[in-house]
Amino acid sequence: MVKYSEPLDTMFRALADSTRRAMVEHLVRGPASVSELAQPFDMSMPAVVQHLTVLEDAGIVTSHKTGRVRTVQLAPDALVAAGEWIGRQRLPAERRLDRLGELLAADDTEEN
Amino acid sequence: MVKYSEPLDTMFRALADSTRRAMVEHLVRGPASVSELAQPFDMSMPAVVQHLTVLEDAGIVTSHKTGRVRTVQLAPDALVAAGEWIGRQRLPAERRLDRLGELLAADDTEEN
Repeated sequence: MVKYSEPLDTMFRALADSTRRAMVEHLVRGPASVSELAQPFDMSMPAVVQHLTVLEDAGIVTSHKTGRVRTVQLAPDALVAAGEWIGRQRLPAERRLDRLGELLAADDTEEN
Repeated sequence: MVKYSEPLDTMFRALADSTRRAMVEHLVRGPASVSELAQPFDMSMPAVVQHLTVLEDAGIVTSHKTGRVRTVQLAPDALVAAGEWIGRQRLPAERRLDRLGELLAADDTEEN
């Protein structure tokens, strides 16, 4: 069985680093320049750019340059694939509890 | 700023491999022996055990040995921390849409 590097491999690997996760958390609040993103971290600009490249290669962020300023933003649906994969890995017991919850909620609606 | 290896680092790194994700998908259906888990993969038993060790170190699976058989199962709340982190990284626009959805749902309930 040949192993390909899959998009989810790249995405989860990009998230397996607290600096990159902190950058994502920053970008959730809105687009930011590379130097704004670098500000909380005690690391060289090349190291910051390297982290951003990993996030960009994983499709989690996009960036564009205006003059000398590169602005980074969260990609639309940035983490949807990873979130959906995790959401599918649920034990049958959890799914049964979900269905029970839905049934109870449906009963509530009928009584209102 | 000192960088610690955080639980989420370990968890996302464990998921950044299609073989390990396939093992998790198998275990969602129920506990399995190591040889059952190895069966779909063309790899040596030590390689399979190494993947399982990564999943176990990340708190995603647990295992116990009875006689000569080691049985592996998904840990309770195996992927909750990763799923919750991803769930929090949502753009303000998405959150506004969610609130709009909740308001519309609340209106529906009031009308019933």
